[in-house]
Amino acid sequence: MIKTGIIGATGYAGQELMRLLIQHPDCEVEVISSRTYKDTNYNQVYGNYMGITSDKLVDIEIDEISKKVDVLFIALPHGIASNKISAEILQKTKVIDLGADYRLNDLSVYEKWYGVSHGSPQLINEAVYGLCELKRKEIKKADLIANPGCYTTCSILSLMPLVKNNIIDKNSIIVDAKSGVTGAGRALNLGTHFTECNDSIKAYKIASHRHTPEIEQELSIAGDSNITISFTPHLIPMNRGILITAYASLDKKYTYKDIKEVYEGCYKDEQFIRLLPEGVFPETKWVKGSNYCDINFQIDERTNRIIVLGAIDNLIKGAAGQAVQNMNIIFGLEENKGLEMIPSFPI
Amino acid sequence: MIKTGIIGATGYAGQELMRLLIQHPDCEVEVISSRTYKDTNYNQVYGNYMGITSDKLVDIEIDEISKKVDVLFIALPHGIASNKISAEILQKTKVIDLGADYRLNDLSVYEKWYGVSHGSPQLINEAVYGLCELKRKEIKKADLIANPGCYTTCSILSLMPLVKNNIIDKNSIIVDAKSGVTGAGRALNLGTHFTECNDSIKAYKIASHRHTPEIEQELSIAGDSNITISFTPHLIPMNRGILITAYASLDKKYTYKDIKEVYEGCYKDEQFIRLLPEGVFPETKWVKGSNYCDINFQIDERTNRIIVLGAIDNLIKGAAGQAVQNMNIIFGLEENKGLEMIPSFPI
Amino acid sequence: MIKTGIIGATGYAGQELMRLLIQHPDCEVEVISSRTYKDTNYNQVYGNYMGITSDKLVDIEIDEISKKVDVLFIALPHGIASNKISAEILQKTKVIDLGADYRLNDLSVYEKWYGVSHGSPQLINEAVYGLCELKRKEIKKADLIANPGCYTTCSILSLMPLVKNNIIDKNSIIVDAKSGVTGAGRALNLGTHFTECNDSIKAYKIASHRHTPEIEQELSIAGDSNITISFTPHLIPMNRGILITAYASLDKKYTYKDIKEVYEGCYKDEQFIRLLPEGVFPETKWVKGSNYCDINFQIDERTNRIIVLGAIDNLIKGAAGQAVQNMNIIFGLEENKGLEMIPSFPI
Amino acid sequence: MIKTGIIGATGYAGQELMRLLIQHPDCEVEVISSRTYKDTNYNQVYGNYMGITSDKLVDIEIDEISKKVDVLFIALPHGIASNKISAEILQKTKVIDLGADYRLNDLSVYEKWYGVSHGSPQLINEAVYGLCELKRKEIKKADLIANPGCYTTCSILSLMPLVKNNIIDKNSIIVDAKSGVTGAGRALNLGTHFTECNDSIKAYKIASHRHTPEIEQELSIAGDSNITISFTPHLIPMNRGILITAYASLDKKYTYKDIKEVYEGCYKDEQFIRLLPEGVFPETKWVKGSNYCDINFQIDERTNRIIVLGAIDNLIKGAAGQAVQNMNIIFGLEENKGLEMIPSFPI
Repeated sequence: MIKTGIIGATGYAGQELMRLLIQHPDCEVEVISSRTYKDTNYNQVYGNYMGITSDKLVDIEIDEISKKVDVLFIALPHGIASNKISAEILQKTKVIDLGADYRLNDLSVYEKWYGVSHGSPQLINEAVYGLCELKRKEIKKADLIANPGCYTTCSILSLMPLVKNNIIDKNSIIVDAKSGVTGAGRALNLGTHFTECNDSIKAYKIASHRHTPEIEQELSIAGDSNITISFTPHLIPMNRGILITAYASLDKKYTYKDIKEVYEGCYKDEQFIRLLPEGVFPETKWVKGSNYCDINFQIDERTNRIIVLGAIDNLIKGAAGQAVQNMNIIFGLEENKGLEMIPSFPI
Repeated sequence: MIKTGIIGATGYAGQELMRLLIQHPDCEVEVISSRTYKDTNYNQVYGNYMGITSDKLVDIEIDEISKKVDVLFIALPHGIASNKISAEILQKTKVIDLGADYRLNDLSVYEKWYGVSHGSPQLINEAVYGLCELKRKEIKKADLIANPGCYTTCSILSLMPLVKNNIIDKNSIIVDAKSGVTGAGRALNLGTHFTECNDSIKAYKIASHRHTPEIEQELSIAGDSNITISFTPHLIPMNRGILITAYASLDKKYTYKDIKEVYEGCYKDEQFIRLLPEGVFPETKWVKGSNYCDINFQIDERTNRIIVLGAIDNLIKGAAGQAVQNMNIIFGLEENKGLEMIPSFPI
Repeated sequence: MIKTGIIGATGYAGQELMRLLIQHPDCEVEVISSRTYKDTNYNQVYGNYMGITSDKLVDIEIDEISKKVDVLFIALPHGIASNKISAEILQKTKVIDLGADYRLNDLSVYEKWYGVSHGSPQLINEAVYGLCELKRKEIKKADLIANPGCYTTCSILSLMPLVKNNIIDKNSIIVDAKSGVTGAGRALNLGTHFTECNDSIKAYKIASHRHTPEIEQELSIAGDSNITISFTPHLIPMNRGILITAYASLDKKYTYKDIKEVYEGCYKDEQFIRLLPEGVFPETKWVKGSNYCDINFQIDERTNRIIVLGAIDNLIKGAAGQAVQNMNIIFGLEENKGLEMIPSFPI
Repeated sequence: MIKTGIIGATGYAGQELMRLLIQHPDCEVEVISSRTYKDTNYNQVYGNYMGITSDKLVDIEIDEISKKVDVLFIALPHGIASNKISAEILQKTKVIDLGADYRLNDLSVYEKWYGVSHGSPQLINEAVYGLCELKRKEIKKADLIANPGCYTTCSILSLMPLVKNNIIDKNSIIVDAKSGVTGAGRALNLGTHFTECNDSIKAYKIASHRHTPEIEQELSIAGDSNITISFTPHLIPMNRGILITAYASLDKKYTYKDIKEVYEGCYKDEQFIRLLPEGVFPETKWVKGSNYCDINFQIDERTNRIIVLGAIDNLIKGAAGQAVQNMNIIFGLEENKGLEMIPSFPI
């Protein structure tokens, strides 16, 4: 049994991780940590755990936790993990960081977009960007995983085949993204007060969301060129799910079939990527509760643009599920262990 | 492997059953049947099954299906199953009927409340009312299970200890019930059109809902007396979940602890019933996606009434999950096989 | 033009009042006050006012405000207004208090349920309970109005004819109430965080909600006897609206028509009470955005109980609309001035 | 008093029109027509009208209706109005058609996108495209108004200043649009069944929605060049509201202030267009229940694109409200008569 720990176990991503790890056949949860809820029974923080666990949350040093676990998941706001993790910690345990601190390869880009200085810049090169479908080999050997963001996972998986295969004008990419409210976390905020976001929609952080450079970095690598995108996130009155609608100019005329082959070339063996049949488009309801990323596209012949749609469950493929997938790869388990849930509907 | 079949696989209960059976370690789904979607791929009817199954729906005779399966689940509107099931069918396969046809012991009560004549009255006595926590022994030996209704499961489990232990005035019971919209099924109806029920609440079938005699029947058996209740269902703008708020007059003064012991006496070994700590009350969000029934109560000292609250996921403990639980009992499996899901949150 | 002021203009009730008063043909809003948002433009607090008003919120003493206005609306949490209002204030301006401080006639009941001492007990007898349909005459002459609570307005209006006409066992009343989330106000709270209450239902303050003694007081007056009720509120995932489902034992057999006549006797001239046709029941969607209270009932012949349903918009008839109705009565305007909005649907 | 009639009074747009016209100080509703609900009381079709009107729906010929009214609103699916309206009808009454039949100037474009032949092509040139802010002069003299679509109103108003002033690359426009479910009407459909669209988001009619040529036509006129756009609508789990997020490449570097002046040049005297302050972006909740169109934009300096956001209430400014605004212009009333509602919140 793999011994696991979760730092930041009481946020929504931490909670989903807790659920997946308890249900995982090869894991046990040794330590759950939280500053705010220290010494509280987990099932008092999340009533769904009543009768399932009576474990208490602790607030102990990462150094101590790292001795007790084989893998440590960190689900904290940006800027904290980089001050906790060190080479010493990584000698004792694998670390899968669900936060942003090690996702960006370029320190200056990190510090510009996040507005904080990085606590352990020497580890940035150690970290592997844990988008499993793209980095499987590197993940296998990694000690430190930078688990990708929710918008980024969905955007990169949806667009990668196009940039990798030079099908689009790489400077024409626009990603219009829509997220459920769990994406904003459990911290109280007027914008996520029920009566302020129910039955309404808004864009936020227009042209300034921090997932932008992360998407650009990975698409640039895949496309072997400098890619700059426009990215606009929106808040949707629903609990879970991300849908991205991406636009790009095709470099010449293509048929649906042409481009479908490109996607199949990239993803035909990927069990968590579902390329939908022609004319059937991703909807967040069909991926909720699962680790799937659904993808399809439409060619807009009048403008010669391609419109790509991708959908994930933001807390699973966009956070906790992908973290488990990373763990499975690192520990040599089957990649879908503990992740075979059929999406729930209607839920 | 237990071979299973589902007749009526495209309703919401049928779909949830499909999901549970595919994920069940000891089952395989042999036949999925639907009149409306005959010859259609299941994943075209429910997009969540994309990549999981490419089975097609068939529309074949129950007689033929019964030869191929060890257990047959029927999820059809009332009045149909009783015309399909016969002693011959029951010799070939176990039948778990998620519909209403065999739930009421008294034929005349059935015909009065449902307004149809019963197709196989001779089988009514054969059928066991499949509320697992109350009828485990009978279920083990049954060939035909009448799987309880959603409101009824939640109401009976919440109230049974009180009537069984003669703690309340048995004619004082009022059940005010609230259901998510999946309870109304997938058939189109103005009342369940999004913009007609979103952001609104209404009562319906006031003092006339068909689950009333079912609750009365089982509470009367448990309480060994004729019990008549008032029952009012309400439609809540949410996908899943049932909450019942039940009121009854206590026959004398009791403390919370007195009554808690009564509940524990009935349920302390029940793994799917969670008696919540004092002051913590059921919310549908904490049971969503699971087979749990959460229960707690408050004594209203000013009026000497007890107010009991119960919550279930209507499609799981209120339908498909309980059906699987019944199957597990019949086939001698551990009762929680395939049903150990931790409730999902926030979903 | 009647000069009005609002203290506590940035809560949801205050905002709805603002909207009604700006649109009222005979009013102008002179002062809007808020501690939290002092010196802020109102349209920055509520974006719907963009282009409508650029008034700023002030935080000045009530004494000063009272000199500038003909009527002062106070929409503050309980325990504050009673420390602000004095006989001197009431000589300068009429006061309509949307809070709880003057609703209960019995000081000890107030202090027991609210857990605070009352700041101006000498004014309790001055205050008129502003349930317009019941107290029109007293309101006309009042200087201080205790505007009723939302649950109470709906409960009292729905049940009054029954207690007044001795049709029910007065100790059998149970009110099962359901409210939209605006009822919990704009203050941040985990329970009203979008992802914590969306797609879920719960009861709260079971047998202990502060509107209970208020309902009992007014029903006791109407029924000329001491009435004690059971009251259970529930939180519904919707923005607005209250539905109450009330149960009581009939003292003998009645027909629907018998009891309808009793209701018509009480309400046939009331323009804001709509007695629905037999078989048609209140739904919150049909009253949203209006000052209506919709009422109907069903006789449960099997138990000889009556089930009464009432629906209001909690922010209008349950708060700001009724406050305006009170103002109209006091100032001799037509009672429906500024309140003739047809309910909006689907909204 | 202006005598009005509504054909198709029982759809959502028809109902909103009914509400606005009843509340309009200078109108009366003479005729409400519906095939489906012929001879039914309007308040049985829409319960919000209980106590407000007891008018019955009729199903009489347009010829007969046209004699009784000064203005006739038609709210029918496309392809029907063009077979009903004739030069003779227009001699008897003004017609404001909320449907699509007269919106497109080019018959072949209409027939291509709508897939039907047009019933009165000779009237296409008679019709004025009723986007009030752009065509006020022509509307004043019109007998037949083609009231714009909901997506189109929001898109055109948001983008017009940019194309008119040659600020953007006119072939770079992408409109990513989001609509509440009322946009899909009241007809039953699996996609708008509550449990199929609640808590989920999807795109639909990608690169093929019929509002596309309408937006292109009007932007082409405003920009005096042939404009082709990409348009993707999405279904959002909310009742009302449209938000559009539009992207375009700027032709050179601009500051926010530069472009704000361009918008102010177009809209500074428009009472229904609210140009929000820098950094404040449209949200549908702030326009719900009103005739406003809120607009703002952000310059994405990294890509030199402009991102424009616009929000309207789809049933008001996107349908019934604009229809009333057109009527006000035609009949020489103040343009905001009956349309001065402050947006409702939270509703």
